[in-house]
Formats: sequence, structure tokens, C-alpha cells
Amino acid sequence: MLIRDARRDDWAEMWAFMRPIVEACETYPWPPDTTESWTRAYWMERPAPAARLVAEIDGRIAGTVEIHPNLPGQGSHVANAGFMVDPAFGRRGVGRALGEAALARAKADGFHAMQFNAVVATNTHAVKLWHSLGMRTLALIPGGFHHPTEGLVDMHLMFREL
Amino acid sequence: MLIRDARRDDWAEMWAFMRPIVEACETYPWPPDTTESWTRAYWMERPAPAARLVAEIDGRIAGTVEIHPNLPGQGSHVANAGFMVDPAFGRRGVGRALGEAALARAKADGFHAMQFNAVVATNTHAVKLWHSLGMRTLALIPGGFHHPTEGLVDMHLMFREL
Repeated sequence: MLIRDARRDDWAEMWAFMRPIVEACETYPWPPDTTESWTRAYWMERPAPAARLVAEIDGRIAGTVEIHPNLPGQGSHVANAGFMVDPAFGRRGVGRALGEAALARAKADGFHAMQFNAVVATNTHAVKLWHSLGMRTLALIPGGFHHPTEGLVDMHLMFREL
Repeated sequence: MLIRDARRDDWAEMWAFMRPIVEACETYPWPPDTTESWTRAYWMERPAPAARLVAEIDGRIAGTVEIHPNLPGQGSHVANAGFMVDPAFGRRGVGRALGEAALARAKADGFHAMQFNAVVATNTHAVKLWHSLGMRTLALIPGGFHHPTEGLVDMHLMFREL
């Protein structure tokens, strides 16, 4: 598996697996009318220190992470990141590799810490994975996420110094 | 004290006391280059269910709160709010009145809960006030705010069901 910076011409391949994840509305609190162009701007076009990486397996893009300041101004030393993995490449350590790479990249780019604001509790794979990478659950936001089939479920706020 | 919806022509009077608060960078993690037009768009122009109220004393605007969904999409049932009070009207219960009004308004507008993401720990007056209104500190974000004179200080993530 190769982890590298995403390139502009990766987008079509990325969007192919990102689109069903976005449309499922099970893991991201994104606008209900989220479009490809909104997502591309969010993921690909924010200026540095925002960054985005892809995991490549056999020449195909298996997953991606984007990193950006969690808050502007006096909060901009803490990073936030979002991850999406192509289910076709599940159980091959793509999420873990992207998580490790994102933590390293955020540190290299000068961030002091990584914060995740909205890890949906029903996304148990992600919760376990981030905990195993040293992200601590600082709080559970009670019923913070309206899951399309599970109803109101908690969200983990996770944090780790870098 | 009268609490009422902000009107477009209130802005000049609001900005007069908001500007020093914004420029001090001690309580809001906003962009370092925050302008009046950015702030007016953030505070005054977001579509419903976003809302903004002012506290009026003797015909003058003493403080304001703006309310909006904390997250889009599947997180949009939780509100977030920001408050600014004119220091010239300090110690007259303006913050408390605006806090109570914001909780009531958010509930009336259908929000399930109120979440504050970034109550700066050095802002002890605000921390005590929000606790007294039933907001619970679910987490302290360690060093999440770079205070211009105090250095890295914690931020409270607060939450209350409505």
C-alpha cells in the first residue's frame, strides 16, 4: 500500500467510492443536499495547511483522508480530519494506514493535536480503530447524530496530542 | 431589559461593541483577519433556523446572541450559539438574559439540544454563567485555544438538552 498526496486527477476515482458513503448519511454530518462539487471543494481545494492523502493499492485508490484546522484563528493549531475507505478494499488496513499517516502529516505540518468532533457511535469499526491509534474519547455528545435507520445516536469527540 | 429579534438596522450599533471583542481574540476562535462584512454575514445573514436576538436597555443595544445548527445534515438538530455583551452594560444580567432567551428560542425552533464547542477556560464569567443555566461541561479540550496573553488554554465543550 502506498500513501501519497492526492492529485487533482485522482478525484473521479475517489468520488466513485465517496459518493455512496456521502449519500448513506450514516457517518458524516454533512448537508443533506451534498453535491460532488461541494465535496470536491471541501476535500480537495482548501489551502494549506489543509492536506489530503490517498491510499493506493495495485494502482487503485483504496481510501483517502483530508486534514484541516479544526477551528480558525486561535484554535487553528488543532487539526481535524475526515476519512473514507472504499468498501471494496475493506479489512486490508487502509483506515489504519490512513489514520497513522494523517497523524504524522498533521504533526509534520505543525499542528499540536488532532481532534475528531463527530465519530458516530454506531460506526464501531472507526471508534475502535481511532482508539487504537491513541485518540481518546473526551466526550460523548448525547444523541448528537440522527442516524437514518438507528435514530438519535451518540457522537464521540476524540482528541490526541501530536 | 427587552430581548427581541435583531433587525438589519441594528448592525452598526452591534458592531461598535462587537468589534473590540473580535479584535481582542480572547474568546472566539475566529479568523485572524476577521472583517466586519464576514462577521455580519456570520451573525446576521444565515437563513432560518439560524436566528439572532439583541438585549435592549434604555433604547440601546447591550448585547446579542446568534443561534444556528451546530452541524449540518444529521447533526442539525443540535444548536450552537455565540454571545457578545457590550462591556458598558456589564454586571446587569445581559449575558444571563440572552442565554435564557437563546435556550428558549432554540427549543421553540425545534432544536433538541444546545452545544457550545469552544468556551475558553479563561473566560471564567462565561463558564460559570453557562453552568448556572444548565449547560454541562462534557469535555475540556486540552490547550485547544491559543490565548493571546495566556498561551494555550483549555476550551469547554458544553451541552444541554432542551
